[in-house]
Amino acid sequence: MRLDHDEAWSVLLTTDHGVLSTVHPTRGVDAVPVVFVPFGVELLIPIDTVKAKSTTRLQRIANLERDPRCVLLVDHYDDDWSRLWWVRVHALASIRDDELAPAFRSFDAYQAPGAIAAVIELRPTEVTGWRA
Amino acid sequence: MRLDHDEAWSVLLTTDHGVLSTVHPTRGVDAVPVVFVPFGVELLIPIDTVKAKSTTRLQRIANLERDPRCVLLVDHYDDDWSRLWWVRVHALASIRDDELAPAFRSFDAYQAPGAIAAVIELRPTEVTGWRA
Repeated sequence: MRLDHDEAWSVLLTTDHGVLSTVHPTRGVDAVPVVFVPFGVELLIPIDTVKAKSTTRLQRIANLERDPRCVLLVDHYDDDWSRLWWVRVHALASIRDDELAPAFRSFDAYQAPGAIAAVIELRPTEVTGWRA
Repeated sequence: MRLDHDEAWSVLLTTDHGVLSTVHPTRGVDAVPVVFVPFGVELLIPIDTVKAKSTTRLQRIANLERDPRCVLLVDHYDDDWSRLWWVRVHALASIRDDELAPAFRSFDAYQAPGAIAAVIELRPTEVTGWRA
């Protein structure tokens, strides 16, 4: 069954990770796993310095600076398909400095100074969902 | 650490579900949870009639017929971040009829005649991955 906006938002907040899809100029789309926290009616995604990366100058940032349209998909898979659900957030993204880093204090790994280099701020334009 | 093509493909085949991201003409991107099976060097994604949908004429199909570029992301999340991994498959998609439905016999829910209406065939163009 389809979830309306409020149902979908409630289900979204039962978790803290999903997949962020962005527009790539030649590949069409990119996708990357992310963690997120709610921030009022918005969502925040950290660019961290914790999980090893070749650079913090990430393709996801380049994509979003060029085209802010993106989708966050949160998906619960279960071998019992009567327990499936997902929530999809279409959004416009802005890249912020680390002034919003305190919003991630719920993650132990982000307690250390400098753990978050920047923040992707998502302003949802549509929130939908489905559950079996 | 980055996974090379063969490592990433091996890890991909330890699971059977992920997120498919496609190009949408006005929204930029769409994303939807999917199951998949390997088919030689390709991957197959079913359009099923099992999980309730308003139609089998899905947006993902319309998107892929217009622009076959897509990404399948398979993501393993764990509260212990030393156990994180993900695999990303950039691909070109073709929509096939149900002649490939037998490839999904590993799914109990797809045993019934008519359970699969069509199949999305992904020809990978790049397979990458990462694990902590």
